Amino acid sequence: MNQFNLGMIGGGTVGSGVFHALQQNSALLTARIGVGIAIRKVAVKAFDEPRPYPITEKLMTLNWRDVVEDPEIHIVTELVGGTGIAKTMILAALERGKAVVTANKALISAHGPELFAAARKHNTSLYFEASVAGGIPIIKVLRESMVGNRIDRIDGIVNGTCNYILTRMKREGAAFADVLADAQRLGYAEADPTLDVDGHDAAHKIGILASLAHGFWVDHHDIHVEGIRSLTPLDIRFAAQLGYTIKLLGMVRMAPPASGKKNSGPRISVSVSPTLVPDGHVLASVNDVFNAVFVSGSPIGDTLYYGRGAGKDATASAILSDIADAALDRKHGTPQRVPPFVAHARDGKVIPYAETRSRFYLRLNVLDRAGVIAKISAIISKAGLSLSSIVQPEGHEGETVPLILMTHIAQRAAMDKAVTAISKLPAVKGPSLLLPVEDFG
Amino acid sequence: MNQFNLGMIGGGTVGSGVFHALQQNSALLTARIGVGIAIRKVAVKAFDEPRPYPITEKLMTLNWRDVVEDPEIHIVTELVGGTGIAKTMILAALERGKAVVTANKALISAHGPELFAAARKHNTSLYFEASVAGGIPIIKVLRESMVGNRIDRIDGIVNGTCNYILTRMKREGAAFADVLADAQRLGYAEADPTLDVDGHDAAHKIGILASLAHGFWVDHHDIHVEGIRSLTPLDIRFAAQLGYTIKLLGMVRMAPPASGKKNSGPRISVSVSPTLVPDGHVLASVNDVFNAVFVSGSPIGDTLYYGRGAGKDATASAILSDIADAALDRKHGTPQRVPPFVAHARDGKVIPYAETRSRFYLRLNVLDRAGVIAKISAIISKAGLSLSSIVQPEGHEGETVPLILMTHIAQRAAMDKAVTAISKLPAVKGPSLLLPVEDFG
Ligand SMILES: NC(=O)c1ccc[n+]([C@@H]2O[C@H](COP(=O)([O-])OP(=O)(O)OC[C@H]3O[C@@H](n4cnc5c(N)ncnc54)[C@H](OP(=O)(O)O)[C@@H]3O)[C@@H](O)[C@H]2O)c1
Ligand SMILES: NC(=O)c1ccc[n+]([C@@H]2O[C@H](COP(=O)([O-])OP(=O)(O)OC[C@H]3O[C@@H](n4cnc5c(N)ncnc54)[C@H](OP(=O)(O)O)[C@@H]3O)[C@@H](O)[C@H]2O)c1
Repeated sequence: MNQFNLGMIGGGTVGSGVFHALQQNSALLTARIGVGIAIRKVAVKAFDEPRPYPITEKLMTLNWRDVVEDPEIHIVTELVGGTGIAKTMILAALERGKAVVTANKALISAHGPELFAAARKHNTSLYFEASVAGGIPIIKVLRESMVGNRIDRIDGIVNGTCNYILTRMKREGAAFADVLADAQRLGYAEADPTLDVDGHDAAHKIGILASLAHGFWVDHHDIHVEGIRSLTPLDIRFAAQLGYTIKLLGMVRMAPPASGKKNSGPRISVSVSPTLVPDGHVLASVNDVFNAVFVSGSPIGDTLYYGRGAGKDATASAILSDIADAALDRKHGTPQRVPPFVAHARDGKVIPYAETRSRFYLRLNVLDRAGVIAKISAIISKAGLSLSSIVQPEGHEGETVPLILMTHIAQRAAMDKAVTAISKLPAVKGPSLLLPVEDFG
Repeated sequence: MNQFNLGMIGGGTVGSGVFHALQQNSALLTARIGVGIAIRKVAVKAFDEPRPYPITEKLMTLNWRDVVEDPEIHIVTELVGGTGIAKTMILAALERGKAVVTANKALISAHGPELFAAARKHNTSLYFEASVAGGIPIIKVLRESMVGNRIDRIDGIVNGTCNYILTRMKREGAAFADVLADAQRLGYAEADPTLDVDGHDAAHKIGILASLAHGFWVDHHDIHVEGIRSLTPLDIRFAAQLGYTIKLLGMVRMAPPASGKKNSGPRISVSVSPTLVPDGHVLASVNDVFNAVFVSGSPIGDTLYYGRGAGKDATASAILSDIADAALDRKHGTPQRVPPFVAHARDGKVIPYAETRSRFYLRLNVLDRAGVIAKISAIISKAGLSLSSIVQPEGHEGETVPLILMTHIAQRAAMDKAVTAISKLPAVKGPSLLLPVEDFG
């Protein structure tokens, strides 16, 4: 039987989870794949750092180069994070022909193509199942199980912190800031929550999925990103009255071909935004820290993949599956059997967010005066847009009352223009909120 | 670039779906995997049979041996079905070293180990992603993505016909026979619905999943199977009042180790039964013909995989992913990279259904007389069982009234005994219904 040696860089939340899972299940893993995995070294920053699971002391080193330079280590995990030293670590391991497994979405998002090219150059591979949606095997599903499908749309709840906050805001009618503070206390949100609540982490992940699905690397600057800070309990309540739940969705859509151009590459939109999801749809019932990725393709139709999107244990499952693939690829000498990324589409393009189309939810705060609705409606219809409903809920907020408009399908650019004009009406006060509505029709 | 030739046996619902999907997406598939797939022959029973999608006439043959004996065909799909001629076809193709892709759950369930041994003997492989849950990639997920997990439980809605019938019975308050007749008219149920509504098709599938998860081949005779014929609109309504939805679940559970025996193999229970699922659980909202497989493992936690469990298009997606794997395995000369089945557990055992434990729903029809409930309660508590609730809904059914008992966790054997005793009470009339209740606690 073959045996491969594993070197780990990073023994924190995910790293110690992987260490523990391998201790628990290595006999099972070996029996299943016919290959043994032995941990040789674990590089960390400080020996005495508290860890979710203990790591055998004599395996630890403070020098990550001990790991990448050990000729007897075949597979390296990078579980440090960030786009700085982690990149150096991965490149150093790839240069020495080692297989590398990472959970680092920020790094893959920012430097994927460079890392993949390095893997190819050194005839090895880079595995990143854990970088998107933790335990959910969405990378393998997209690349292997859906390999015969055109991917029509992806809608992902891919940030557990945001989903946890939104779930509690809905259940408790609580304000964003209060739930965030509580989530931080409970360890569901970081001390600096920016990466999560402003949508950037979701953008890293949805960009990776968009790239795999459409065969050209999506530059993360081309992703429109909105977070959940501006949502109020009112929005969540109004959405519920209209039969919707607000979720932070990463979305990938195919856009119609550019007019006049024949045989141009795929045109897609990629965005992250709080979005109204109909209550009957499976995504609406994905709650708490759980993640889910809805993928619709042809011929497969609608599919959904659900599980824990983060955490020491769920993420370890994804790392172990990558380690198993790396070990099998090594055993068979086929490192590029399923390359980390295949650029299979020429001239792919992410269209500007202004060109995307959807239904919209618009919440305004207006003075409770006769004629306000008429003026707003006039702007809407002059812009060529049409409303599916106007709701004026009971109850004042100081001098203003909330007013909710739901539109039919419209272009974002036209909608933005109308909102700007509406905001200039003297009766319209304070910030408005514009969100896409998805009916999965 | 490599190119592999595909020979198809069967061009009906699934076969023509595969043919069509390959016509639509073969350029995409080739670009993604770097291997071309060309269909060389399609064997059918009669040229003029109506098919969901047309098949190029000059590729068709009435002799399946033309396919397996063609030395230029590398990969063969068996999309005929049944456990008779299909087995001969698969063995004939394997003997000639061809890779075989099948959707035939009945055959895999009955003769899996024999077919896998033949594949091994002839240094080729048998792929069967499409045999369980149509488009849902549950075979790859279990074998590859969850390879580092102990699988604690599987709960699958794996028969679309039953789920369609149960969904409509709930929505419309309709009777089983009426919805079945309508489903037959609409093409959602076969003229002979036995295989579906009596649970056998679900048993084939859950047995395959149990085998892969636990590493020993589950004999389908060891699976306890109950279908949905005995469910009444009353049961569905009462369950709803208690906060549950009735779903036909295929279930795999780990049982405690046999007392006194050390290091004995895994003990599991495998069953198919209508089951009460709490309304808040994701499985309760899987409706219509959709399938879903809930898998809980360690370290991954709870996961769910959802999609269309049958149909020409969704099933074709699974067949294409197997064809892609077969082509890559062939290209790299690694047919046994992920063998069809790895017997990784020694002495595995399916425990008798009588030894399983769960909560229960018991519906009785009783005469509306004083003292009946007391007598029933006495039997229950004498059997060492305890009730969590007793519901006596409004309304008579002729001379009797329905009575619903919900128990705490109990052993099936004890429960069966109590039900037998209760049925002998003079005040208890007609058939009772006993169903497991799963709280996913
Ligand atoms: N946490 C999750 O749930 C989750 C889920 C999916 C993906 N990820 C990704 O997984 C990666 C790791 O996240 P994490 O939550 O496990 O982070 P973490 O708990 O902060 O762990 C980071 C680890 O890296 C070590 N480290 C830092 N700098 C080092 C250096 N120069 N040399 C050697 N080791 C060094 C740290 O050592 P010390 O232990 O000594 O401090 C620690 O063990 C990130 O890319 C993250 O995005 C995390
Ligand atoms: N239907 C689904 O949604 C679905 C989903 C998952 C799995 N499956 C499985 O897929 C398999 C095929 O199902 P299906 O629904 O596609 O069945 P089907 O529509 O009845 O098609 C069977 C095909 O086999 C051909 N055939 C029968 N006997 C033959 C023979 N002796 N030689 C050559 N060809 C022969 C038939 O030829 P003619 O066309 O000339 O009659 C027909 O093309 C079964 O194992 C089934 O369990 C089906």
